[in-house]
Parts: sequence; C-alpha cells; structure tokens
Amino acid sequence: MSIFDTFEIAQVAFIVRDIEKSARAWAALLGVDPPEPVITGPQEEAHTLYRGSPTPARARLAFIPAGQVTVELIEPDEHPSIWREFLDEGGEGLHHLGVYVKDLPQRARRIEALGFPLVQQGDYPGGRYAYMDTRSLLGVMLELLENF
Amino acid sequence: MSIFDTFEIAQVAFIVRDIEKSARAWAALLGVDPPEPVITGPQEEAHTLYRGSPTPARARLAFIPAGQVTVELIEPDEHPSIWREFLDEGGEGLHHLGVYVKDLPQRARRIEALGFPLVQQGDYPGGRYAYMDTRSLLGVMLELLENF
Repeated sequence: MSIFDTFEIAQVAFIVRDIEKSARAWAALLGVDPPEPVITGPQEEAHTLYRGSPTPARARLAFIPAGQVTVELIEPDEHPSIWREFLDEGGEGLHHLGVYVKDLPQRARRIEALGFPLVQQGDYPGGRYAYMDTRSLLGVMLELLENF
Repeated sequence: MSIFDTFEIAQVAFIVRDIEKSARAWAALLGVDPPEPVITGPQEEAHTLYRGSPTPARARLAFIPAGQVTVELIEPDEHPSIWREFLDEGGEGLHHLGVYVKDLPQRARRIEALGFPLVQQGDYPGGRYAYMDTRSLLGVMLELLENF
C-alpha cells in the first residue's frame, strides 16, 4: 500500500506575523472579503506536542477558499511551536501543504521511516493533524490531516 | 470585477537541481511511478521574456497529479530566467502557485498595479503564462496561466 491512498493537496498554509494585515492583503489580491480569524484550542483540547513535548502554544488561523484548495494563514503566539520556530528562523512564508489521510499514526510512521520526522501534532475539533518535516525534499512541510 | 474570477490553485511548483532525483524522491513519498520529464520549447516557440528581455532559457519539467492540483518540478538550465535566479539565490524550494485566468495581460496589469511585478512570461503549447512576484506578500510567486 502506498503511503497516500491518493495524494490530494487540500491546504496551502502560510505563516504570518499579523493575520489581520495578511488577510486584508490576500483579500485585496483576490477581490474577496477578508476572512475572520479563529484561534486554535487550548492545550487541554488541542493536546499539542511540539518536537515530542506538550506546549501551550496556540495560533490564530484564517481560511480562504481557493477552488479545491484552502489557503490557510497562521499567526503563532509566543509559545514554542513549529509555527513560532518557522517565523523566528525564516520569517513569513509558505509553511506547509495539507493532505487528508486515514489512519494518520500509521502514515506518519511510514513517512518518518523515509527520513522525514514528525515535528508537531495535535487535535482540532473533529480531527487531528501531524506535521512531517519534508523540507529537505520539498522545501515545505507536509501536514497530515485526519477528520474523524 | 475582481482580479481573479475564481482563485483556484491548480499547480504547486518546485524548483529543483536534478529533476530525475527529485522526481524519484516525490514518487517514493507518494508511492507512484516517477514522472517523465519534458522540456520547455526553444525561444522561437516559447518567446520567453525574463525581466523584460528575451532569453534562450529553457527548463525541464515533470508533473505529478495530486487531486485537483498538479505538483510541478522545474529544473532550469544555465541561461537567465526566474527559475535560474531562484535556484542561484535560495536553492531548491517551492517557487509558485499556478492559477488559471482569462485575459492574462489584463489580469497581470491589475496585479502589477497592486505592487507585484510581472517578472517572466512566455508561451507553451496551447497557452501562455506570466509569473507575478508576490513574494513580499505570499512568500511565493503566483503564476497566471491561460489556455487558448
């Protein structure tokens, strides 16, 4: 079985410093209304693990429909996270491509076996996610997403 | 009228140094056969303009279907191009998101008016393209694509 039953890019996600500013700029470019940011859940809901350790980090998110793909903007808070790390190390930019999978833990293990470590994972309402650090191959991370 | 009638990401494109190597790595990750590279047309067909001037630059391309999106790998040759510039300045990585439009010149002018310059354009069999340097906003370029 291949790692991905089908590899369909569902999200293209950017790390930003100021989500209102970025949302307005995207909206101006696309000629749409700026999306309203939401915030990820607290640790007791999100169970965020960053490089293997629990973190209270949260992020503000905004979503812009782009056909079959969703553009996601992510503004991290100051706590340790893969989002914060990205912003501190390289500034704003394209962070990951999101792909839906089934049986996320098994897929993540198989991708790790190819040499691409799982660097952050957590839950969101109705699902869970894992970031695989594929930057050495793709220049960006892959996010595995699984809705229950 | 908005700049994009609908903004649908159709291509996610990476600049690579060695397209066979990258195609194999992508194929291993996705569990598919490596795509066969093709080469862009010569200047008399492609009419490539790089930062306003004709260039003989060509690139080898490989395409991997990923649901509604196509992953594109681009290996530039040594001649001046936006692809070569990207590789020389920052190395491999995600270069652009491709979006289909109608009336490409008019769309390009409106995006330029927002402060994002057209940095390369050309023809391909059945269509034409223009790269808009949206890196200051998006971290990546946008490619406008128009099939005739």
